Amino acid sequence: MLLGKEIAMLKGELTRQRIVETAAPIFNLHGYAGCSMQDVMEATGLEKGGLYRHFTSKEELAAEAFRYALSRAVKIRTEGLDCAPGSIAQLRCIVRNFVEHPSPMPGGCPILNTAIDADDGNSVLRKLVVQGLEDWKRRLAAIVADGIRRREIRRSVEPRWVANTMVATLEGALMISRLENSRTALEDAQKSLESLFARIASKTRG
Amino acid sequence: MLLGKEIAMLKGELTRQRIVETAAPIFNLHGYAGCSMQDVMEATGLEKGGLYRHFTSKEELAAEAFRYALSRAVKIRTEGLDCAPGSIAQLRCIVRNFVEHPSPMPGGCPILNTAIDADDGNSVLRKLVVQGLEDWKRRLAAIVADGIRRREIRRSVEPRWVANTMVATLEGALMISRLENSRTALEDAQKSLESLFARIASKTRG
Repeated sequence: MLLGKEIAMLKGELTRQRIVETAAPIFNLHGYAGCSMQDVMEATGLEKGGLYRHFTSKEELAAEAFRYALSRAVKIRTEGLDCAPGSIAQLRCIVRNFVEHPSPMPGGCPILNTAIDADDGNSVLRKLVVQGLEDWKRRLAAIVADGIRRREIRRSVEPRWVANTMVATLEGALMISRLENSRTALEDAQKSLESLFARIASKTRG
Repeated sequence: MLLGKEIAMLKGELTRQRIVETAAPIFNLHGYAGCSMQDVMEATGLEKGGLYRHFTSKEELAAEAFRYALSRAVKIRTEGLDCAPGSIAQLRCIVRNFVEHPSPMPGGCPILNTAIDADDGNSVLRKLVVQGLEDWKRRLAAIVADGIRRREIRRSVEPRWVANTMVATLEGALMISRLENSRTALEDAQKSLESLFARIASKTRG
């Protein structure tokens, strides 16, 4: 049986989680400067005291909201990865997930949004997005390196180059696609990356 | 000889231009929500009355600042284009300009920054950036179409696909490069696009 203190802690944890889940799309839509603690108070229905009990500053809340948004994005973008037969199939799966679910949360990709928002400012957010980007690139490069080891991908291919090209093409296409209100740029990006995968695959060589 | 009224108009025009040139990097660095009229007043040294005589709202000033930032970017990115011998050489020239001068103004590319800033909000800025992006893509697609007409580029190549891939890859790479404080992502983008140009060129086919 839960004691009163444990129930209070559990309730606090749930409220904290609810604040993060409510704040994440607001920050993702409007950016750090465009979202105030007042906006979050209104969206959550909490009083000032209730909000500040959990987050002492907007920076702290924005960091937590970014972590949550990123974890959602990673989950969606790596879906089905374990079932993909081989490295090229895994890269294709990641591209397909991105093109089919480009906005894991209202406002687009949290990495792209926060990168543009934080590249000249907010240092806590900047550190988090640099880490998020590096983790994503490391995952992609590891798939390529694995493909090289298994001779599925040509030995001359640089994993970092493939990772940079994939992230750049997908994030850039998402920017275009959101501006144009059209999927065309994302589909064109998919076509370009499919062509890249065909060129790095060992079998296309011989 | 200039009359008093003409001198006053000329002075006004110069002040207006100075406001735009001062405000443009501030908006480009901090975004629409992150830049206030107060910031612009401080940077220009103008009083409130002096600033508002030229721009009645932040939206009006932000629009003018974006137009100015974009014109600077277009100028730098199309430098030397007339001297490039052929369509592929022109595409290469644009990529080289972008990679060598990725930030035509402090804060990075005004299209990318304003796109992320305005894709969910400010409708005047959104219209301007959509127009800026479409103009850029149209210029690139026209070069490709011209290359096809001159049989320098394969007939099966879709100009829109090349334009989308170029803009996506360059803008995405710029985002990575600015976060990482490193030119690697831009150089990787250049390598990817060089490889794309080799594949779309007619001569590589036969």
